[in-house]
Parts: sequence; C-alpha cells; structure tokens
Amino acid sequence: MALFSKDIKTLEDLYLHTLRDIYYAEQQIVKALPKMIDKAGNSELKDGFTHHLEETKGHVERLEEVFRKVGEEPEGVTCPAIDGIIKEANEIAGDIADKDVMDAALAAAAQAVEHYEMTRYGTLIAWSHELGRNDCASLLEETLKEEKAADEKLSKVAESRLNKAA
Amino acid sequence: MALFSKDIKTLEDLYLHTLRDIYYAEQQIVKALPKMIDKAGNSELKDGFTHHLEETKGHVERLEEVFRKVGEEPEGVTCPAIDGIIKEANEIAGDIADKDVMDAALAAAAQAVEHYEMTRYGTLIAWSHELGRNDCASLLEETLKEEKAADEKLSKVAESRLNKAA
Repeated sequence: MALFSKDIKTLEDLYLHTLRDIYYAEQQIVKALPKMIDKAGNSELKDGFTHHLEETKGHVERLEEVFRKVGEEPEGVTCPAIDGIIKEANEIAGDIADKDVMDAALAAAAQAVEHYEMTRYGTLIAWSHELGRNDCASLLEETLKEEKAADEKLSKVAESRLNKAA
Repeated sequence: MALFSKDIKTLEDLYLHTLRDIYYAEQQIVKALPKMIDKAGNSELKDGFTHHLEETKGHVERLEEVFRKVGEEPEGVTCPAIDGIIKEANEIAGDIADKDVMDAALAAAAQAVEHYEMTRYGTLIAWSHELGRNDCASLLEETLKEEKAADEKLSKVAESRLNKAA
C-alpha cells in the first residue's frame, strides 16, 4: 500500500486510497479477461467477456479522468481483495475438463468480480457527493451502470443454462 | 483447496466446492465482525454489525443444513477472495484516528463483504435449481435476503452521513 492507514486522516485521503484500489483492480481485470475469453465455450459468454474487456479499458480511462479532476496522478495500490477474487477464479477454473461446468465456473467468477466493482463504485459515488464532487460522481455512475449491466447479462447466461437443463 | 479443479468434473462437484467456499467465508466473517464492532463509533453502525454477527452465525447453521441435505459433511475450503477482502478491510481500517473516517472505511469494507456473499449465494441458488434442489435454494434464498438487507442498511448509514454533512 502506497498509503498506510495511519496516513488516512480525512475522507479525501480515504477517497483517494479507494480510487487507487479500484484503479489497480480494473487493471488486473484487463489482464485476467483474455484468459477467461480463451476458456469460455458458450459463445454468449465469450462475447460477453470480449465486450466487457473493451468496457473495462474504458473504466480505466474514466478513472484517470477522475484522478485528474481531483488533481492527483493516476496510481494504483495493491488490492488484496481483487487479487484474492482473481486467484480463486484461476484456481477453480484452472483444469475443469467439462465445457459446461467450466462455463458455469467462469460466469460465477466473473460475477464475483462484478460485485466487487459494484460495491467499490457505489462507495466512491456516495463519497464523491459527500465531498461535493458531483462531477466525479457522474463519471463513476457511468461505470457502475456498465458493471451492473455486465452482472445482469451473466445472470441471464446462467438462467439460459438452467432453461436448457430443464 | 480440499478439491483441486482437476477433480471438478460435474456441476455437483462445483456446487459442493462453492458451498465449502462460502462456509469458510461465513466463518471468517464471524471472526472479523467483533473487531469491526469494537472499532465502529456510530451507534447505528455498531448495532448493525452486532445484529449481523448474530445473522451470520445463523448463515453458518443454514449452510450446515444444506450440506446435510446433499449428504455431505460440512467442511470449509480456503477462500482467497474473502481472505483478500478481510485483509484489505484490516489494512485500511487499521489505524485511522478520525472516528467518522474510520466509520466510513468500516461501512465500505462491510459492503464489500456483503457483495461477495450476495454473488456467491446468487450463484448457489441458480445451481440449486439447475440440480433440482429447490429445497436447498429456499434455504439459501433466506440468507441472500438477509445479506441484501444488511447491504441496504449500510448504504443508508452512508446516506445519513451524507445528509449530516450537507
């Protein structure tokens, strides 16, 4: 961590730390998604991941805009949460031979990633308002909408598997 | 991991692995919450954590019921995701001197935990239906409802901070 918790004195400090946390997380997701695209069998899932990879690159740029707005250099801090979520995704999906079971594991892993992002963006939006930065809140809202849509799309892929199975 | 991914051949295997993952996660949350209760300054937040600790103990028992229903011994597997989320919560909230900033950090950390649980229970409910285990789905739905309510309560605590600040 670039910023130790003893150095977090104000909500501005906490806000900046959380921006750095999600900036690092988005970058790790950009690195993780190509492997998930390779492994996905279901074309809807593969297309969804491919689309979300492009969106995620946009989220990184949008965060850079927020950094600029608050007068800070874009910088990441190691985020043990996303590292753990991605580590678990790699472990679980590592070696599954059955294509349908692999897809189920990949979709579940991607939903865990989406939920992590949704909670962090939700928090950052609330703090943006608290700090009087509605301009930053608006930018972060755009990303949050895309994360929620990606999560819903993954739930629908799971539902269509279920209807196929029924 | 007690079950390597090469041993996950069917959706039943993946389901069991994910049950073990969230069983471990709930137990780690039972261990983490008392420290968060101690650190919380805002009485609404402290009461919310205290109430959720009791609920979480109930979630552990409910999972044990699901294990019994599917004929398996309750057993956890290390879950790097929840370990990462809790590690991050401990790091960030470790040493913040300002009470309001500490509360904001604690509430955000708790929401990250809730979101992890929400995604895992959502997945397990979908898979329960897919595996024809509506009885397990119903039990897991009860927990999911409580996790969502806990998350909403935390959002309201954040909103009331905002209104206070405005």
